Amino acid sequence: MGGGNKDKLSTESYKGVRDLYPRDMFVQNYIFEVMRETAESFGFEEYSASILEPSDLYEAKTGEEIVAEQTYTFKDRGGRSVTLRPEMTPTVARMVASCRRDLAFPLRWYSIPNIFRYERPQRGRLREHWQLNVDLFGLDSTEADIEVISLAHKIMRNFGAHEEQFNIHINSKRLIDRIFGHFSLSEDEIRSVSKLIDKRNKMPSDEFSIKLKDVLGDKSEVADTLMAIVGENKVENLPESIQDSDELREVEKIMKGLGKLGISNTVFDFSIVRGFDYYTGVIFEIFDTGGENNRSLFGGGRYDDLMKVFGESRVPAVGFGMGDVTMRDFLTTYGLLPAYAPNVDLYLCTLDHEVEGAAQELGARLRESGVNVAIDFSGRRVGDQIKVANKKGIPFALFFGKNEMKSKTLKIKNLKSGKEADVKESDVAEFIRQEYA
Amino acid sequence: MGGGNKDKLSTESYKGVRDLYPRDMFVQNYIFEVMRETAESFGFEEYSASILEPSDLYEAKTGEEIVAEQTYTFKDRGGRSVTLRPEMTPTVARMVASCRRDLAFPLRWYSIPNIFRYERPQRGRLREHWQLNVDLFGLDSTEADIEVISLAHKIMRNFGAHEEQFNIHINSKRLIDRIFGHFSLSEDEIRSVSKLIDKRNKMPSDEFSIKLKDVLGDKSEVADTLMAIVGENKVENLPESIQDSDELREVEKIMKGLGKLGISNTVFDFSIVRGFDYYTGVIFEIFDTGGENNRSLFGGGRYDDLMKVFGESRVPAVGFGMGDVTMRDFLTTYGLLPAYAPNVDLYLCTLDHEVEGAAQELGARLRESGVNVAIDFSGRRVGDQIKVANKKGIPFALFFGKNEMKSKTLKIKNLKSGKEADVKESDVAEFIRQEYA
Repeated sequence: MGGGNKDKLSTESYKGVRDLYPRDMFVQNYIFEVMRETAESFGFEEYSASILEPSDLYEAKTGEEIVAEQTYTFKDRGGRSVTLRPEMTPTVARMVASCRRDLAFPLRWYSIPNIFRYERPQRGRLREHWQLNVDLFGLDSTEADIEVISLAHKIMRNFGAHEEQFNIHINSKRLIDRIFGHFSLSEDEIRSVSKLIDKRNKMPSDEFSIKLKDVLGDKSEVADTLMAIVGENKVENLPESIQDSDELREVEKIMKGLGKLGISNTVFDFSIVRGFDYYTGVIFEIFDTGGENNRSLFGGGRYDDLMKVFGESRVPAVGFGMGDVTMRDFLTTYGLLPAYAPNVDLYLCTLDHEVEGAAQELGARLRESGVNVAIDFSGRRVGDQIKVANKKGIPFALFFGKNEMKSKTLKIKNLKSGKEADVKESDVAEFIRQEYA
Repeated sequence: MGGGNKDKLSTESYKGVRDLYPRDMFVQNYIFEVMRETAESFGFEEYSASILEPSDLYEAKTGEEIVAEQTYTFKDRGGRSVTLRPEMTPTVARMVASCRRDLAFPLRWYSIPNIFRYERPQRGRLREHWQLNVDLFGLDSTEADIEVISLAHKIMRNFGAHEEQFNIHINSKRLIDRIFGHFSLSEDEIRSVSKLIDKRNKMPSDEFSIKLKDVLGDKSEVADTLMAIVGENKVENLPESIQDSDELREVEKIMKGLGKLGISNTVFDFSIVRGFDYYTGVIFEIFDTGGENNRSLFGGGRYDDLMKVFGESRVPAVGFGMGDVTMRDFLTTYGLLPAYAPNVDLYLCTLDHEVEGAAQELGARLRESGVNVAIDFSGRRVGDQIKVANKKGIPFALFFGKNEMKSKTLKIKNLKSGKEADVKESDVAEFIRQEYA
């Protein structure tokens, strides 16, 4: 918080996290609602868990160093090491492993958790963000990959995005391994080459080429072939034995299946490698096609072996994670966010202190008829009360004074159109419904 | 995590927090939905914030000791002291103070945040729970107190609770101060007596009497009078000067206002003191009337001075917090939770591997007609697929094989009633709609 008057608390939030005011919340709720409705239309069920996890959960897969450097990890008062979850996949795998025998597979689960990473805050990268997580457990079939990718596509479409605005880049971890195997690369070389390929889109072609040769040393022919594969994304550049492989056919089958569902914005992309260790099959990333460079929006893939760390036998799984900050940026860029509209329908302006009790009663009755009513008890002039309603974006105002209390006729105004009407109390809900329509 | 095979990760969650499986999530979503809809019907707008807050935010009001002992507080890598919020009120006060000039008052805000307390886990007291927070800012008028209490009452009613199942206990911090002032109690005595009164319902009357006399030492007459006030809750037991005070009249006015709204389960209760320092006016608690002892479910009150810690002038405020764990226990006790129903309408059973691609396409079309469809690609026998649907509680099954693919007539079954029908694809949605009704 630093500096300033020691007796006066700062009103700033913690660094790198967001305060969501009602208008921000409206956007977040909209984004979550589209995610939620689309996932549920595919039969996915919602689950959740605490942000607090035993640190062991991450150390197993990612190594202690990453846990220590990139997560919020601390000791609780009982000496337990606790981590604020940096991703949801280990948690969902833990939950499935824990109740495996009670669950009916195939299992379709989704959640929209907040996740935490300790990193320098910058545009699109906050210390806390929210992420839709979708996972389909228990199916080896490529139909599962097709479904999960088509769900990702459907969410984008339900946000109003056109197919020209995004592409689905598809690759396969098995295919990558097969290629590396073909060239007999060492573990170290595989790691270095993978890292480099992961950053492929962030550097010019010649820089990539130089770095690749640097990593592969005397194997410059291998570097040339990899350049051709990754750089041009042509199946013809693959070694012949791989052109005819199951690994390649699987990817082609998935792209064909997506095509049959009317999804044509798919791209076979050898440069997609995904950061996490746990992927075992098809991997994919959705890219924004706008701007100078394609920008990765989100991605996922198949991870069939994650249960093993819990001593469980293999459970096939395919899923993805979709962050709210990136999606919000995308939707803003393409003008796809809806205009703000509060959940309040009516602002009940009170014209006199004496009617306030009766206004409470009127408000209660109007709520029973399905109208969301906020009442102004400020005692200010009616013009000032209307200003408040306008500032909040509330569409209707109702004016309630001593006369209205007696006459039972109420004056209502559509603040957007300016239309005024005298209505009976029992007609207020209907008036509003008609004006909305 | 402790013990066991070092290579095998535990599937247990962190101690004192919950994993929410779909059936738990269903209950939580129901509870949140009732809270949300009721709050919005009163014109409250949703906000949110990160669980991470600068520790200073709590040290100011509650003292460093409590922050250190009862919260999750740790230093981040930049040396900042961070606390996982133990309550939402300081956060909302911070947010209002930060943007005060841009906000239109009166301000009705709600949020359903998770909050964290470091304590020994026990029934109804977890280390993480969720809490509806409702706050009305900017109104000094008792109408604000009436509205907020009536909102609390309405949420209980919308949960299906009858007025006989809960009572609203009302008191006033100003009234308490007036009484203490009347007896010229010292700061230390006030603190001790308040603590004792707070635990009033957890001990027999004579134990309370003994402890009260113990605290007040030679002022045994004061103890007797306080006993009569707190024990019998009779206005007649108050010192005469207080019987005629503004403080008392304010409470009476609020109870009368609630009565006019048809809320009759209110109780004037001098033993309600509320733990937090920041209350300045009317305070209230909702009690479960069932069982041997009334049990406090949740509460709130007026806090007009909280902005001052941010160097802001006074902003009147009244609100309450309603925890999900306590409410879930209450609703379970009274049988008020709805039966589980998943958001999936239809389980599409595939009778043959060859139809799976066509099943994806059929699923996509059915979703367009508003039906939530999960498809089984397991290749198992249809009886096993139905078992999965039943275990998940999915109400309808559709059987799709080579014949159905050709004939365009689909066999659909209501798994609850056993009713079967042959329907055209375009009639599936309508069939389901009618069966639901």
